[in-house]
Amino acid sequence: MSADRLSSVSKEVKPESVLLHPLGTAAAPEQELLCIFGTGDLGRSLGQRLLQSGYRVVYGSRRPHSCGPLPLGAQATSHEAAAQSAGVVFICIHRGHYDFLETLAPQLEGKVLVDVSNNLKKNIYPEANAEYLQRLIPGAHVVKAFNTLSAWGLQNGPSDANRQVFLCGNSAEAKQAVAEMSTKLGLTVLDKGSLSAARELEDFPLQLFPEWRLPLRVAVGLTAFFFFYLLIRDIIYAYVVQGKDVSFRIMVSLANKVFPIVSLIMLCLCYLPGVIAAFLQLYRGTKYRRFPDWLDRWMLCRKQLGLIALGFAFLHVLYTLVIPIRYYVRFRIAEHTISQIKENTTSVFDTTTAWRADSYYSMGILGFGLFILLGITSLPSVTNALSWREFSFIQSKLGYLTVFFCTFHTYLYGWSRFLNPSSYKWYTPQAYLLSLVVPSLLIVLKLLLLLPCVDRSLIRIRQGWERNDPEDSSAKALLP
Amino acid sequence: MSADRLSSVSKEVKPESVLLHPLGTAAAPEQELLCIFGTGDLGRSLGQRLLQSGYRVVYGSRRPHSCGPLPLGAQATSHEAAAQSAGVVFICIHRGHYDFLETLAPQLEGKVLVDVSNNLKKNIYPEANAEYLQRLIPGAHVVKAFNTLSAWGLQNGPSDANRQVFLCGNSAEAKQAVAEMSTKLGLTVLDKGSLSAARELEDFPLQLFPEWRLPLRVAVGLTAFFFFYLLIRDIIYAYVVQGKDVSFRIMVSLANKVFPIVSLIMLCLCYLPGVIAAFLQLYRGTKYRRFPDWLDRWMLCRKQLGLIALGFAFLHVLYTLVIPIRYYVRFRIAEHTISQIKENTTSVFDTTTAWRADSYYSMGILGFGLFILLGITSLPSVTNALSWREFSFIQSKLGYLTVFFCTFHTYLYGWSRFLNPSSYKWYTPQAYLLSLVVPSLLIVLKLLLLLPCVDRSLIRIRQGWERNDPEDSSAKALLP
Amino acid sequence: MSADRLSSVSKEVKPESVLLHPLGTAAAPEQELLCIFGTGDLGRSLGQRLLQSGYRVVYGSRRPHSCGPLPLGAQATSHEAAAQSAGVVFICIHRGHYDFLETLAPQLEGKVLVDVSNNLKKNIYPEANAEYLQRLIPGAHVVKAFNTLSAWGLQNGPSDANRQVFLCGNSAEAKQAVAEMSTKLGLTVLDKGSLSAARELEDFPLQLFPEWRLPLRVAVGLTAFFFFYLLIRDIIYAYVVQGKDVSFRIMVSLANKVFPIVSLIMLCLCYLPGVIAAFLQLYRGTKYRRFPDWLDRWMLCRKQLGLIALGFAFLHVLYTLVIPIRYYVRFRIAEHTISQIKENTTSVFDTTTAWRADSYYSMGILGFGLFILLGITSLPSVTNALSWREFSFIQSKLGYLTVFFCTFHTYLYGWSRFLNPSSYKWYTPQAYLLSLVVPSLLIVLKLLLLLPCVDRSLIRIRQGWERNDPEDSSAKALLP
Repeated sequence: MSADRLSSVSKEVKPESVLLHPLGTAAAPEQELLCIFGTGDLGRSLGQRLLQSGYRVVYGSRRPHSCGPLPLGAQATSHEAAAQSAGVVFICIHRGHYDFLETLAPQLEGKVLVDVSNNLKKNIYPEANAEYLQRLIPGAHVVKAFNTLSAWGLQNGPSDANRQVFLCGNSAEAKQAVAEMSTKLGLTVLDKGSLSAARELEDFPLQLFPEWRLPLRVAVGLTAFFFFYLLIRDIIYAYVVQGKDVSFRIMVSLANKVFPIVSLIMLCLCYLPGVIAAFLQLYRGTKYRRFPDWLDRWMLCRKQLGLIALGFAFLHVLYTLVIPIRYYVRFRIAEHTISQIKENTTSVFDTTTAWRADSYYSMGILGFGLFILLGITSLPSVTNALSWREFSFIQSKLGYLTVFFCTFHTYLYGWSRFLNPSSYKWYTPQAYLLSLVVPSLLIVLKLLLLLPCVDRSLIRIRQGWERNDPEDSSAKALLP
Repeated sequence: MSADRLSSVSKEVKPESVLLHPLGTAAAPEQELLCIFGTGDLGRSLGQRLLQSGYRVVYGSRRPHSCGPLPLGAQATSHEAAAQSAGVVFICIHRGHYDFLETLAPQLEGKVLVDVSNNLKKNIYPEANAEYLQRLIPGAHVVKAFNTLSAWGLQNGPSDANRQVFLCGNSAEAKQAVAEMSTKLGLTVLDKGSLSAARELEDFPLQLFPEWRLPLRVAVGLTAFFFFYLLIRDIIYAYVVQGKDVSFRIMVSLANKVFPIVSLIMLCLCYLPGVIAAFLQLYRGTKYRRFPDWLDRWMLCRKQLGLIALGFAFLHVLYTLVIPIRYYVRFRIAEHTISQIKENTTSVFDTTTAWRADSYYSMGILGFGLFILLGITSLPSVTNALSWREFSFIQSKLGYLTVFFCTFHTYLYGWSRFLNPSSYKWYTPQAYLLSLVVPSLLIVLKLLLLLPCVDRSLIRIRQGWERNDPEDSSAKALLP
Repeated sequence: MSADRLSSVSKEVKPESVLLHPLGTAAAPEQELLCIFGTGDLGRSLGQRLLQSGYRVVYGSRRPHSCGPLPLGAQATSHEAAAQSAGVVFICIHRGHYDFLETLAPQLEGKVLVDVSNNLKKNIYPEANAEYLQRLIPGAHVVKAFNTLSAWGLQNGPSDANRQVFLCGNSAEAKQAVAEMSTKLGLTVLDKGSLSAARELEDFPLQLFPEWRLPLRVAVGLTAFFFFYLLIRDIIYAYVVQGKDVSFRIMVSLANKVFPIVSLIMLCLCYLPGVIAAFLQLYRGTKYRRFPDWLDRWMLCRKQLGLIALGFAFLHVLYTLVIPIRYYVRFRIAEHTISQIKENTTSVFDTTTAWRADSYYSMGILGFGLFILLGITSLPSVTNALSWREFSFIQSKLGYLTVFFCTFHTYLYGWSRFLNPSSYKWYTPQAYLLSLVVPSLLIVLKLLLLLPCVDRSLIRIRQGWERNDPEDSSAKALLP
């Protein structure tokens, strides 16, 4: 039954990576022999890749003769024999099956054991798999590595997948050996220290956007708040007071108010912490005092805040552009035209309104354009292509320009509406007024920081100058 | 005439990479000397880069004194002298000129020859250039390398170009030497085995989107089918039956039906194979049985299917947003308004229609927004920044949400139209009905898989459990 | 007061990179000891990273006992002691404080000094910091490195920041040592030669889009010209001749003429140099003659020209799609409808106009779609995933298709307007006519190059053939 075993993943192999060149392995007899325990997806992919990179590979299996199709050029034998033959053994089996390794302790004595295992959930075991393995075979040098790579990634080479390998272990030589192997596979290595880091490494593939949690919560919270705020003002008010059912406005009109409002606020929220930090440094007269935790946490999720804001802005644009196609809008326009004729009234063209409306759109478009630019430059590959100064120029200078355009866009939208008492339904202000609080605050604070005198002392502080002790220099001679 | 030779490409050098530092080479006298045959684009670029990385370089040329401007710090001499002086010789000349190398066999005896050549077409020579070179000079250790890099890429350093170097050869030491050289140039190496892999490496730069072929064929096929289907129903039918010439509708109206339909179908086609595979595994009760080839091939081009679908969706959006500016639409609207007045009829506002229309747009916008998100996360640099779990979360969970939104969007578009007999021109159903077949099927199948019982056993299978032989465990103890 | 010093940047540490594993350092006693002078942001980040990568770290500080919180596992001592203890010393202090190092000359004799410093401005010092350091301590081997990495980037590992390290220095061994260190940190090294390259390396982080200067100047110039050209024709003319104030048209109508015009011209400007180069090579009958400098400079900024053009096209699309929501447009449409009724005239539907208008939009949409595709493929990570042939296929073939679509789009926009004498206000042609000059020229030239005979000889030239001396072959046998 296990005749032609090959899992779906393991089958997803690029043509060229399938045809191996055993001749190559033959031609270079002095190549190192590596042992792999487990003939599963990862075991097979790893073996294939090692063979391609010029190693010889032997698989350890309980059923060496029926363990399915192995990569060309690899042999399979018993666990004992395989372990004996090689200095490095890759453990590509589930932690659940580690126990049987204990019986191999003598053969594995002094060998380098590479633990590549992952778990399906966090904290289901008291200790990390690699630590457990080390406990089972104290005589071996366990190194945790490769577990952050997928079988898929391994097979298609680093050009397709992440080429970063994290490893940790208690033996420096063992780590060195695995590191050299990795670089031969075209991967770059980052040593994370001793085996006590294994847990961290094993949790990595299980993490789900940790740095996005806070920003997403903020986004959901703001969206919910403004949705209900507008629901009450626009829909329920109309129903209760005017007895009109305009519930259909929820789908587009309401959405198109919530999205831009939340987008604007979140855009400003990703620039506010920087300003607050600056004022804190000015107030303290030093940059060496640690910021309060809430500010640190806020700082760390600025990028995410900005990207979510961009997403909402994008939806706002689509919702706006779809307006003229809407049945409701077309109906109203026709109705208006007809009524004009019936009452034989002719509305006169108001240049001011034209100016206002057009500038309103223009500001929005330019703001959105810049916003997209910010988004593009925060793509990893683009960021890496920028020098530090270029990146900060775009993210701060252009960022504030975006904030300005979008805020001005909102002011133009409101125009003189806030003067109109009828717009204060149930004594609540219009939503756009609420959305302007944070941006206005941000812009005022930023303008204060741009005052020459303030700016100068801030730069001095950022360069390491301190108000309190002017003599101590070398300790704080830091690079900007 | 060869006074100031320098080809256009070879001139495209970043300022800093032009000004070299021969002093550096002078300051470190024990640096390795490398030899380059051929003073062409690649020869020059390679030499420049090698010099920058601290090697000494000598060019072998037939006319050492008139072979044009070489990188600063490099000498040129006869092929014989150059070959003698260095242990590694880069062959940067066309295969067409290899024959003369035969005369240098004695000087090249035991040297490492790096073949960097490419051909202009596939299969124009019986054997790979590198293999041919090895045949010409059996005494040398030929290594195929660098041919996948462009002169352009070499000069501007890995930050601009792909930093992956593929190499192959029969001598492990020779490959090792070239590999170390490559890492010194800031490149990462992937050993592809023996010289028999040379053909594969030489074909690589000539490949033109191999993995895009199938998806593009599907896209073209679907587009053609729906174009003619709609042409007959919308244009020809109107001409034949109603005698109206509405041919102008081809440009926008028709396009705006074809693109969304094909987009929706292709989006579903990139999720369907996963579902089929799941059912196959459930049916077989194991994941170790190889999938039929058609399913494998289908699986491998899911990403491409999705990206083409995204492109079509993007066009659909633009075609939709352009509607209200169209002369035809404006004319019809005005006509409608006027007729209303003439006949003094006033159409009443229908809340249901408003609900339907607005939800229809809202679904479309949200679906498109998610679709864009999927597209962004499939950018190499973004994919690499995601953990395996994060990637699969986005591509599967959010992917199905996209499918749902877009399908619902289409259902809302159709609404009750399919009940209208007049819409069955020439007994053919409307195109949108056809487009709903695949999505509906996909969603039903997916819902079946989400049933707790089904889901549970599928997970067990994916973890390596098998219905047939429960005892055999270690052999299939695979990492997910 | 220096109790809990930690600068904002230095605090921006990922959770996992904070918890270090001193046990690891303990477990491997033979690890190399490195010395860091300066406990600032970069000093601390560097130390942390070195510790994570398995090195032991000792800080040299003037106040070893009050130099703030150092990374776990690092000791702090006097500069003298620290210098003595380690073979490699990282100088993480401001150039302004280098002078005190002179006193340590004896301890630093023969050591490798890694200068990681940057300046705040270009050319504020007569010589590079590293060269100055070398002059202060002639006995040491100064290596310039890591200065292009940010403290931020160092801490979060290469996956987040650019992994490229540039280094230079006069001692090859010293450079080798630093290079090995860098690869252990998961970075890739590019040797830039001797210490005379230090200035270049120190200027790198200060550069601000050097390759964007020229294209931006062109963009600004063209935008300004067409803005004023249209201001005069559309606004001022209407005011002077017809006495109408249509100044509000500046915000949208005018912008929506300037952006597409500049976009089209710049798109063509990024393909024109290639065509010119081809004709030059045809005329000269060789590809080995150096191009005039202006052409080279032009060639080097093609990508930037294209991207700016894409940005303008994007704005054009938004400005176009916003048209139907504009107050002005709605007013005019209503006005038109009303007048029709009043005068009881009924405009007849013109199929030709419908054809023209719809094709005009369709061409624009398809052109923009392709343009976006070009933009995406020029993202670094996407470019790297493409083979050379694939890249050139997209950038040239699809590029010219884009040019064709956009030009055709503009022709359709103009249609027969240029025949209308009233459109020549003040004897000036319409702006779109001016915008068509470059594209038309480009297309004509390109078509000439596509003539079989011309194409054939161009290919021959590009393969190294020369009209003048047919016999000399090997010297110019270049890879394409």
